[in-house]
Amino acid sequence: MNKGQKLYSKAKKIIPGGTMLFSKRPELFLPDQWPSYYTKLKDCYVWDMDNKKYSDLSHMGVGTNSLGYKNSYIDSRVMDTVKKGNMSTLNCPEEVYLAEKLIELHPWADMARFARSGGEANAIAIRIARAATGKDKVAICGYHGWHDWYLSANINESKNLNDHLLPGLSPEGVPKALKGTILPFQYNDLDAIKKIVTDNPDLAAVKMEVVRSEEPKEGYLKEIRKICSKNNIVLIFDECTSGFRETFGGVHKKYGIEPDLCMFGKALGNGYAITSVIGRKEIMEAAQNTFISSTFWTERIGPTAALATLEEMEKQKSWEILKFFGKKIKNIWRKMENEFNINLNISGLDPLATFYINSPKWLEYKTFITQEMLSNNFLASNVVYMSTKHNDKVLNKYENILFDIFNDISLFEKERKDIKDCLKGPICHSGFKRLN
Amino acid sequence: MNKGQKLYSKAKKIIPGGTMLFSKRPELFLPDQWPSYYTKLKDCYVWDMDNKKYSDLSHMGVGTNSLGYKNSYIDSRVMDTVKKGNMSTLNCPEEVYLAEKLIELHPWADMARFARSGGEANAIAIRIARAATGKDKVAICGYHGWHDWYLSANINESKNLNDHLLPGLSPEGVPKALKGTILPFQYNDLDAIKKIVTDNPDLAAVKMEVVRSEEPKEGYLKEIRKICSKNNIVLIFDECTSGFRETFGGVHKKYGIEPDLCMFGKALGNGYAITSVIGRKEIMEAAQNTFISSTFWTERIGPTAALATLEEMEKQKSWEILKFFGKKIKNIWRKMENEFNINLNISGLDPLATFYINSPKWLEYKTFITQEMLSNNFLASNVVYMSTKHNDKVLNKYENILFDIFNDISLFEKERKDIKDCLKGPICHSGFKRLN
Repeated sequence: MNKGQKLYSKAKKIIPGGTMLFSKRPELFLPDQWPSYYTKLKDCYVWDMDNKKYSDLSHMGVGTNSLGYKNSYIDSRVMDTVKKGNMSTLNCPEEVYLAEKLIELHPWADMARFARSGGEANAIAIRIARAATGKDKVAICGYHGWHDWYLSANINESKNLNDHLLPGLSPEGVPKALKGTILPFQYNDLDAIKKIVTDNPDLAAVKMEVVRSEEPKEGYLKEIRKICSKNNIVLIFDECTSGFRETFGGVHKKYGIEPDLCMFGKALGNGYAITSVIGRKEIMEAAQNTFISSTFWTERIGPTAALATLEEMEKQKSWEILKFFGKKIKNIWRKMENEFNINLNISGLDPLATFYINSPKWLEYKTFITQEMLSNNFLASNVVYMSTKHNDKVLNKYENILFDIFNDISLFEKERKDIKDCLKGPICHSGFKRLN
Repeated sequence: MNKGQKLYSKAKKIIPGGTMLFSKRPELFLPDQWPSYYTKLKDCYVWDMDNKKYSDLSHMGVGTNSLGYKNSYIDSRVMDTVKKGNMSTLNCPEEVYLAEKLIELHPWADMARFARSGGEANAIAIRIARAATGKDKVAICGYHGWHDWYLSANINESKNLNDHLLPGLSPEGVPKALKGTILPFQYNDLDAIKKIVTDNPDLAAVKMEVVRSEEPKEGYLKEIRKICSKNNIVLIFDECTSGFRETFGGVHKKYGIEPDLCMFGKALGNGYAITSVIGRKEIMEAAQNTFISSTFWTERIGPTAALATLEEMEKQKSWEILKFFGKKIKNIWRKMENEFNINLNISGLDPLATFYINSPKWLEYKTFITQEMLSNNFLASNVVYMSTKHNDKVLNKYENILFDIFNDISLFEKERKDIKDCLKGPICHSGFKRLN
């Protein structure tokens, strides 16, 4: 057993669920074998507790590190903040500078608030939208955090969030009074959202990810914008994941549709905790009529890291690099598809690409891919979040290993080889599951 | 106008409410004059944007910095983390070590979860308590964050939170469906909580601050513990503020009463963002049946800072120092009371002491105190959170300045001098108020 797995065994006894983020749960990658914990990082490399070095062609900190691990400029600015002091009775000026910068990048927005997690930013936006409209219901499309308001969607119908978050999720611990306040709709289905708006005059907001696994249909986002404006509904784009991947700002800039509120997170601080809500003045001012306040939202590393990250992004034009490598990764997968005649489903924004194999044995295959990648010193399964520190050398190596893996998979598919003989441990988990 | 006020004027235009934390709003201290923003810190000193140095006899980062600003050991550990990397696809081992340490300090607890703000930790505890009991209602006593679940207390009766949070707070933007789920009770009133328990068989939890402005009456906490155990109600102590001030851990250790869940925040990371929920296994395991997950809860600075802070606290026996200086501050105030025959109300734990003057002119007096303290290079109004970096020299200087201030106040009281002639700006705000 590697040192990481040993520590994880202990963690599961004293931390319910084992990790703080569901997506970092080792069982989702490679049960009993995943290194689980890191000691140090650099560029696109991760060292585990046994001092083994891996190339990260997985999710690069769940998309936090789009400029790679340990960007020296950002880190030096953070160190400078540690040297000056992170928290005091007074406020840090950086939060004002960051508000200015985000508004400058999104001229439709006038005001900003900051938090330290995406769930918080999402909850702030909902509070503001409800306060601004005096209405309570919210239509949602996508994943918007762990808070009560969102999970309550599963109170009516326990499969409501299957397509938006993950299957198997029970809303235990969410007050049943919230039943019926959240109305999920399918992406690209204009009739679905129209029906919700018609049936619910008390709809405060439409909250959605701008792009999900598929591109928006022609006119889809424009029509939603029109419906919201017409019906006094706050349009909220959750760009915690998509922001700063394909444009210098929200991906909504690519489609030319402006929301009323927009959240950023993940990539904004390149690995340091900072999230934001930006929005139009007439909506954001409603925050003054309600109580939205937290001690640690005043710490200084978050806005400092974000300001430095935005400088670096602008200098590098990071979004162009992410798109470039994202296309390369998708091409590698397409090559595998053609070479081995295996039916792949490839989706997501180029910098947030994902694939799966259309096969009943997909979970076994996914486990096999992760296992073989790991033994070749890659952290990689079927989701790749690109960073500017990925490079051709790493991608070529990845392609070569993937070639051998897909060669095996084609043999499994043709039943010339049994995957069961090739797996060294249990199959990875798919959805939400209780750990023992 | 000082540089800080200039920046704050800009902030109010682009940040609704001006600051991220209500308690750091300059209008609560000294409208138009408060320095508002800091550049650097050390021990108990703060430098503003005009490079003026102040002694902080105010709230030391709202109680985050109980070991003083810029503790060199903690900061060196944080820098080391920045050098190694703050966030990756794998988890950081420090979160497991921190869970172990907090459980070791609180032998009644078996498991821990971490977040990055007190509001989150409070919401996690409520989710877990509701999931564990299958019940929805919560009785509360104290301030427990900005989230919907808590603010909904004001839906029935807009003054419900006046004594717990602050007056004038409207629950705008909180779904009206939550009406009646939160039941506030007065501290030290055993009949009040007994009535809530009798009237509400669907009570999931009692959440309270262990001590508020007054000490618990003999047997009060013990009786609440008994009532909760008897009725399958989760007893939750919110120690985000009180933790690590009078004991090495929760202040509940002082009273010998063990909760089922307990939250820590503020002092835990000495100025770095980290909060926690600890609890008994049979309750905490309910977290596995619901979705509690956030990307930035996996960053590494938080648990690293907390581990280093706990080491430093243990080494210094910081809680003894905080109590020592806390008693000194209260004694200084008592001296003023006696010397000038002014009726003071002094309350709070010694390390979190507060006073007010029983006078209809109190807000004017408070403004005057803050104004005169500021002109003598002190950040100080009527609340003092002690740190181990306070010292006799600073306290003596504070006492001398306060003597002159109280001398003036006694003249105001005797109407030998008019306070209106002595205030250089507007009177400070008391409760929640919309900013222009």
